[in-house]
Amino acid sequence: MSVAAGPARARRVALQIEYDGGAYAGWQSQPLAPSIQSQLQTALARIADAPIALVCAGRTDAGVHARAQIAHFDTTALRSAEAWVLGTNTLLPADISVRWARAVPAHFHARYSALWRTYRYLILNRRARSALAAGRALRVSAPLSVEQMRAGAGCLLGEHDFSAFRSAECQSRSPVRIVRALSIERLGDWVSIDITANAFLHHMARNLVGLLLAIGAGRVPGEHARLRLASRQRDAHVVTVPPAGLYLWSVQYPAPFGLPVDSAMMPPVPAPGPA
Amino acid sequence: MSVAAGPARARRVALQIEYDGGAYAGWQSQPLAPSIQSQLQTALARIADAPIALVCAGRTDAGVHARAQIAHFDTTALRSAEAWVLGTNTLLPADISVRWARAVPAHFHARYSALWRTYRYLILNRRARSALAAGRALRVSAPLSVEQMRAGAGCLLGEHDFSAFRSAECQSRSPVRIVRALSIERLGDWVSIDITANAFLHHMARNLVGLLLAIGAGRVPGEHARLRLASRQRDAHVVTVPPAGLYLWSVQYPAPFGLPVDSAMMPPVPAPGPA
Repeated sequence: MSVAAGPARARRVALQIEYDGGAYAGWQSQPLAPSIQSQLQTALARIADAPIALVCAGRTDAGVHARAQIAHFDTTALRSAEAWVLGTNTLLPADISVRWARAVPAHFHARYSALWRTYRYLILNRRARSALAAGRALRVSAPLSVEQMRAGAGCLLGEHDFSAFRSAECQSRSPVRIVRALSIERLGDWVSIDITANAFLHHMARNLVGLLLAIGAGRVPGEHARLRLASRQRDAHVVTVPPAGLYLWSVQYPAPFGLPVDSAMMPPVPAPGPA
Repeated sequence: MSVAAGPARARRVALQIEYDGGAYAGWQSQPLAPSIQSQLQTALARIADAPIALVCAGRTDAGVHARAQIAHFDTTALRSAEAWVLGTNTLLPADISVRWARAVPAHFHARYSALWRTYRYLILNRRARSALAAGRALRVSAPLSVEQMRAGAGCLLGEHDFSAFRSAECQSRSPVRIVRALSIERLGDWVSIDITANAFLHHMARNLVGLLLAIGAGRVPGEHARLRLASRQRDAHVVTVPPAGLYLWSVQYPAPFGLPVDSAMMPPVPAPGPA
């Protein structure tokens, strides 16, 4: 009697991924267009010596960046975290990098285990463009009032039907989402809008930013946010802002998964004030 | 008797310029290689409808960036500051931008009037590379001790013969420069080195950073800085670090010229700590 060798046991691995989305048709693999997912799967498959299928926390659209995308995959390949990170990075283009890899339990799921997702939208609020921020921020010439934007943003917090802020192509069954935090900060000419929600409808972050910019520039009154939300209808005042200013900034998971929380960071910059 | 019309009076204009130097052979115009200066002169000439010759504060090398390069030119064309900035920006590639333009007196000289120049060198001190910082920082895998770097840097302050830190091709008559400040800061994985001097010898900033990195990584003792300086000779321990981490960060002029001091800034970033 012979004992058939069982299949090698698959292990689940989580990754933190950073990318400049400018050159890609988005996260998701699709025929005839370059995607972040395809680039990563191709590189990881070479390290694993077997095909790899990635599941991510937030399927970013074409041109959207990520500072800390999270994804997982299953593999029977035994590789060190270092191999998954440094080995994969040598096979990736310069605009995609893996920051860390961690073995996670089989019930971890990059998309379904995520508690909160934070997107940052970066705005350069002046008339002259910035070469060093090319493709990394939206330039808005009209002076923005952060105070008015904050006042308008208040009513968006909490659990709401965000139908007014989803795209026509949005495939989510429910339009209800919970916005836990919405912070708007100015540092000199730079304005950042951070939105934390349990999940985002398609184009929700970019439509919320579009509304806040209309309020901040004085094109619509602050109460427009409340009226828009209540209407559950899109309108012409809500512009979907371009993807180049948007970053998947962080994803929060239950603490027991033990994922690193301090590893994603941008370069240090000067404080505002005299150069 | 007729009065011949005199030539139109030339005016001097100063510019602040930002660029990603990655695609250029440096500031200076040269045959057969793309330069920042040529790109700017071509764009400005179209606005002026006449040739423009630029003089800059610091002729950055191939691949070096600028957050706040200063340059001046003379022109008989009467244009608004807005035209020099916004008009020129529409004619420049995305990796070069003009931040401001100011009329300055004829005795202002971007190079000779400059009192102090500050260069920043940006280091990513970890093993995994960063997609969003690609081409914008040097990655150093060995852990760097900022304390040791600071201790080593102390002896470099003040007026010294910096022959040990100039390139073989340096054409300056005197190797003596005054280093007014040298600050080394860490923010998570990022280390920045700011060097302020009255002027820099060729490769001086990148050679000083190379020495400080050798000290910070423990490859040479801190007193090596003093010995190296005193020797006036280059040695194998002093590596010229790559240009991609270097930024012409700011240039200081006498206050009476009234140049803006708060207009150059990088995008806001998160504080270190939990993502």
